This record gives sequence, structure tokens and C-alpha cells, in this order.
Amino acid sequence: MRQSRLLTKTKKEAPSDEVAKNAQLLIQAGYIYKNMAGAYSFLPLGLRVIEKINNIIREEMNSIGGQEMYMPSLQEDRLWKLTDRWSDENVDVWFKSELQAGGQVGFGWTHEEVVTDIMRQYVSSYKDLPFSAYQIQTKFRNEVRAKSGIMRTREFWMKDLYSFCATQEQHDEFYEAAAKAYERIFDRIGIGEKTYKTFASGGAFSKFSHEYQTLAEAGEDIVYVNEKKGIAINEEVLGEADLSELGVTREELVEAKSIEVGNIFSLGTKFSEAIGLTFKDEKGENRPVIMGSYGIGPARSMGTVVDLLSDEKGIVWPESIAPFRVHLVALNTDDQEVKDWADGIYTVLQKEGVEVLYDDRDARPGEKFADSDLLGIPYRVVASRKGKEQGTFEVVTRKTGEVRNLSEEELLADFDDEE
Amino acid sequence: MRQSRLLTKTKKEAPSDEVAKNAQLLIQAGYIYKNMAGAYSFLPLGLRVIEKINNIIREEMNSIGGQEMYMPSLQEDRLWKLTDRWSDENVDVWFKSELQAGGQVGFGWTHEEVVTDIMRQYVSSYKDLPFSAYQIQTKFRNEVRAKSGIMRTREFWMKDLYSFCATQEQHDEFYEAAAKAYERIFDRIGIGEKTYKTFASGGAFSKFSHEYQTLAEAGEDIVYVNEKKGIAINEEVLGEADLSELGVTREELVEAKSIEVGNIFSLGTKFSEAIGLTFKDEKGENRPVIMGSYGIGPARSMGTVVDLLSDEKGIVWPESIAPFRVHLVALNTDDQEVKDWADGIYTVLQKEGVEVLYDDRDARPGEKFADSDLLGIPYRVVASRKGKEQGTFEVVTRKTGEVRNLSEEELLADFDDEE
Repeated sequence: MRQSRLLTKTKKEAPSDEVAKNAQLLIQAGYIYKNMAGAYSFLPLGLRVIEKINNIIREEMNSIGGQEMYMPSLQEDRLWKLTDRWSDENVDVWFKSELQAGGQVGFGWTHEEVVTDIMRQYVSSYKDLPFSAYQIQTKFRNEVRAKSGIMRTREFWMKDLYSFCATQEQHDEFYEAAAKAYERIFDRIGIGEKTYKTFASGGAFSKFSHEYQTLAEAGEDIVYVNEKKGIAINEEVLGEADLSELGVTREELVEAKSIEVGNIFSLGTKFSEAIGLTFKDEKGENRPVIMGSYGIGPARSMGTVVDLLSDEKGIVWPESIAPFRVHLVALNTDDQEVKDWADGIYTVLQKEGVEVLYDDRDARPGEKFADSDLLGIPYRVVASRKGKEQGTFEVVTRKTGEVRNLSEEELLADFDDEE
Repeated sequence: MRQSRLLTKTKKEAPSDEVAKNAQLLIQAGYIYKNMAGAYSFLPLGLRVIEKINNIIREEMNSIGGQEMYMPSLQEDRLWKLTDRWSDENVDVWFKSELQAGGQVGFGWTHEEVVTDIMRQYVSSYKDLPFSAYQIQTKFRNEVRAKSGIMRTREFWMKDLYSFCATQEQHDEFYEAAAKAYERIFDRIGIGEKTYKTFASGGAFSKFSHEYQTLAEAGEDIVYVNEKKGIAINEEVLGEADLSELGVTREELVEAKSIEVGNIFSLGTKFSEAIGLTFKDEKGENRPVIMGSYGIGPARSMGTVVDLLSDEKGIVWPESIAPFRVHLVALNTDDQEVKDWADGIYTVLQKEGVEVLYDDRDARPGEKFADSDLLGIPYRVVASRKGKEQGTFEVVTRKTGEVRNLSEEELLADFDDEE
């Protein structure tokens, strides 16, 4: 895409009303726009990043058999009363409104009740199990205080997967597969090294649940970590008995700030019993389905990447989720020959299937480089008069600052290799 | 995908609480689920159809330069008060709720105000214009009565594109390009022949706006059509003066029921003046941006296809938006050799990149064929004992009922040709 046609522009300064680094950088670079406290727009560059994250999530959810679907936000009280999660006393994040046709509706903040109800019509025998379903859908939560930029908002996408099993063995097997898929997701979006599967309290149906916590100074959570043992523990399970079960002592653990980027949870038969999702087992006896739920926030993951990987010059995207792979920057665009040369390599790169943002604007080199650093696209390819004379492009790796001068042939070979 | 693993099943009967054919068939076949009046889930097969429609819309919006973004549902009153569209007296479809932090929020039923506000920071000169931006995003409308299945719901996806121009000429040119893109979209999803660009009243800034109306018995709109002249007219512009401008007489027009699948509208400077979206023209004078808005409902389009193209046996999907291209139906699955043979062609078709739903279930042929007709996948490929003996697959075209017996080689060549 030609940057001269991109509807967004970078700003000289970070916005004064944001304290979170992710929101400051993403707004300054034109990835997002703050519409109100806790509700952001994703502008063209920002939506490209979200879509890449979503596609990584989809691939990994599909790889463990997850079937994608989509449930509505609008909720009647019926199902939620069965699980005692309708009243504002029990759940303090509902947005509710009045139907003109009469009656109250709520805007979904999670979907356990909804998905359990839907599956009642499709599950009758143990032969229908196990399976899992997920959606990437918008949740609404009436947070008293929106904070941390795109990390804690009142409206946000969530990938929520739900599993349905006949036996505890089936459930445990799926839970492990989901945990591994989560690790692959965080690896692929570039925060795997800092992200710990963290032990948290499990509720009535399992000893532990698991949060995926990314160690980060900007985090609003606290975890207790032993990096050497590769273990992290939530405050809830810091008791002696829990620690001994996990094979660590309190002294071995260091307190660290972190961001919860995902969680997985054994639900047992809580929802299936309340809502009536049962199946006939091999003996013909009716039993409630054993469920699990598995969440990831795509925008929170995006914010975490920005908080964790950016430097003093701006954002540093991992290739896997960058809005474009290459930022082609044309200098000396007043010289028609240089301009044609830059246009030429733009056409060639596009033809080769390389995703390119092409800075074809009439602007000073300093401004272009500052914008390029701020935007954080992995490879900057500079087309200049000097380069043209030498027959080379300057290729700068955003993450390392490494500079290489490559001929067109070398450049194309380079991007071919790295696909 | 193996049908034995698909989480949905067909139902013997259409649901008794739906009168609209689209909802009856889509629920019976397992494409959608009714969560409440006016709010549906899109189950795996249904979401596949929606995604195909969305991708056609995306391709055509991108082809006219549209840049995809995403705006939030949550709305504060500020902008909407500038255009007098906040109060329930002026707009009767708002869902509103109270923020715990204080103040009211609404759930977006359209986004003109929002997008105009966002663009203020990116438009300063005529050089920044023209451009256009769109989203595929969820709208909420507090309809007194939800009706017509997935055609008029309280929560629905909408593709809404907004154009921003410096001059009326720029606007007119874009408006025409958008109109052509809309025609391509309706052609591609299979309802082009029955869909008319219909003249409707234009508001303050243009003589006419345009609705895309698909002639259908199930429609809840009325249009006046002359099929020969290829013109359709909304009741609003049936006056003598309008008709004479359009070159038709009342006598030439026939009343017909129709479904509004899209609309395009010149907004003039209504929103840019109210919200302060201005630019400096060549002479350095401040002027308001000239805008347009362009909507399509993906789920309504899906419902229209079902209403229009289904037959007494079930749904008939056009290839372009079918959830799968091929429904491979294995018979005689108790015979391991036939099963292996069917598994084999499933593997081969997948390897060739053909999207296949594979009915590998242990069920009677009659049940499988009825399900297959109901699901409406364009090509049914039957693998049976008899076929195996003859070395052929029976290929049935859903739309025409045409039956062909093809060898594996012929089958693959056939699907290659038609890509």
C-alpha cells in the first residue's frame, strides 16, 4: 500500500491523555484511536495486526479440532438465572438495557451459558463427544475503571473456546492439547519467552486453573516466578499445601509484574448441570457433559507485544503479526529517475507476494525515518539517489538495527528465504 | 471436514417458531441458532457462508480503494448530540445503558458520527482527499419487532463504508464506482439478476439515494419495477416530477415485494459541518468534507440467497458462498473396502484444495441424501459399493439435479476446470 494513500498519519507527539505505553505508541503511530475511555477504534494498520493475531489463534484452535462459530452479544435473562449470573449483585460488569418490545437484555461479557444451551440440541449420546467450539467475538464489560490502554477496555474481542467431553480423561487430554496450543500462539506472536503458564485456583472441579501471564513492567497483575524451574504461580495458590504439590518453596519464587494474556479453566459440570446439557453414556445412563473454557484477548495480546518489544524509537513488531513485512522508503522523490526506481521495486516486491507499505510521500528523510521507526515494520528498504547510483537498496532490520546494502536480486532472494 | 465430527446435525422438522423460510431452512440444516427474538448464532456452517460473503464484500471494497478499519459499538453522547441523533425521540432504535463510572452509553446502530470524528485528525488539506474507509462490524438496533428470520434482527453485522471528498465531482465519481462495486457484489453472491439499484429519496444533499432491492416474495419492502427498462423505484419518489426525471411513467411500473440488501447515500456536508471535519482547499479556504455512506448487511444477504434460491428439498447455495464446494457422501460404510475408497477420494480432493464436507456417518442412504439436499452444497459426490465396482463416483449438481458418473480422473479434472 502507498503511504500517501493511507488514511492515517503519525503524530509528532504521544497523546497526553494516555499513560500506558501501548496506547501512546499505537495512537501516535496511527494504529488505533481512542473513542472514549475503554473503547478504541482499530485503524487500517491496527486492524491488520489484529487480523494476523486472529489468524494465528484460528490456526492453532483449528489444529486441536476447534470449530469456529459466532454467538450474539444480546442476552435474555433466562439462561443466566439458571447459573445465578444475571443479577448485578453477583456479576458487576453487565451492561444492561431495556427492549422496546418489553423486558431486559444484557450484553454478553462471556458465553458459557449461551454455548451450553446451544449444544443441548446436538448432544445426546457419548458418541457425540468430545468436541470443541470457539468464536472470536466482541465482549462488553462495564468496568468501573478502564485502564492500561487497550489492555483493560469496556469492549474487546475475545477468542473464547469451549470444550465438551464425556469423561474426565477426555477432558484432561483436551485441556493439555489446549495448553500446548496456547504456548504455540504466544510463541508465534512473539511473547513466548516471557509468558508463563501460571497456576491459579481451580474452583470446584479442578485443583488448579491456568493463566498465561506475560512478565512486563506495565503489567497490572502480580505473579510469583521461578524462571529457572519455568514455573509461575498466582497469589491465590501461594499456600503451603499448593506450593508443595507444585514442588516449589516460597523462597524460590520472585514477585513480578505481569499481564494476563490468556486463561484456561476446567468448568466440570457446573454449566451442563445448571442448563441441562446431558448425554447417555455406554450404559444408557444420563450424565452431564464435562466442560472447559479457554480465553485469549487478541487486542490485549497486541498491547502486550507493544509494551514488551518497543524501544525508545517506537514499536518493534515481530514479523508474524507486523501490518506489513517491508517498509519501502523512497528518498529524493523530486528526482523522477529515483522515483521510478522506487516504484519499480515496489511493483516487484508486490508481485513476489511481499507485503509492502511504500512511503512514496514527499517528505524529508529525517521525517520518513522517524515515522518508519515509530511504525515498527520489520524491514526498512531505502531507495535513494545514492543507492540507485550504486545499484543497491539499504535494508535496515528494525529490531537489531543491522544495515545491509543489497542489489535487487539479493533483496528478493533474501525475502524469499525468509518466507 | 468429516461430518461425523461436525458439531451440528440437521433436524427432521423445520422449527415451529419461525415463519421466514430463511430461518426455517438455516435452523433445520444447522447453519444458525435462534438465541432470542432478533439475535442468532452462526454455527460452523453458517459462519463459513458469512465469511465468504464478507470476503467478496472486502475484495470489492478494496478494489475501489476502501481501507478496512473497525470502530467500537460503545458510544458516548457527545458526537450524537451535535447531529441531534442521541435522544430517543429522534432515534427510536438506541440500546442505551449506564456506565458504572457514571454517564450513559449507547450501542452503535450506525457510525457516521464516529467515523467523521476520527477523520478530523487526518484531514487538513485537499491533498488528503479523497479516500474511503469501511468496516464489517456489529450493529445493535432496538427494533420493536424482530422479523423475517435473519433479515431484521436486533444485532447484525453491517459493512458500512464512508467516503470523504473535497469536491462534488470527486464524490460523484466515487459514488458511481461504489454503485458498480455493489452490483458486482450482488452478482457474485448469486442474487444479481433479481437485484435492482432502486431510486429512493435523497435528502438535503442529492436528489436521489439508492437502495439495492432484491425482488422476492418474502420481502417486506415494496418497489415499483419495470424489468424491461431495468429500473426500480421506491414509493418515496413516485411523484410525477421524479418519474419524468427518471424517464418512466407510473403505468409502466409494476408493484413487487422486495428485500433491501444494501443502500448508498450522499451525505453532503451534514456530518462534516456538525462535527467539524474540514479541509483547506487550493485557495487556503476552510471547507467541509463531502461525505457518502454505503451499507450492506452480510447476514441479510445470506438470508436473501436462501429465500430466493432454495427449493422444496432445501437450500441451494451458489458456489461462491457455499460453506463447502463438494459434499462427499459415502454409502455402504459397513464395507471396509468402500469406506477406504471414500476416505481415499476425500484425501485426494483435500490435497487438490477442494473444500469438502465428507459424510462419513453410519446412516441410511435416504437420510444422507435428504441431509445433503437440505444442506445445499453445490456438488454431491457419492462413493458407493456399486460405484466402486464400476470405478466411478456419482456427481449430482444440487441446483439442476444433473447426474454424472465420473472416474477419479474425470472428477478431479472437472473440479480443476471450474476453479
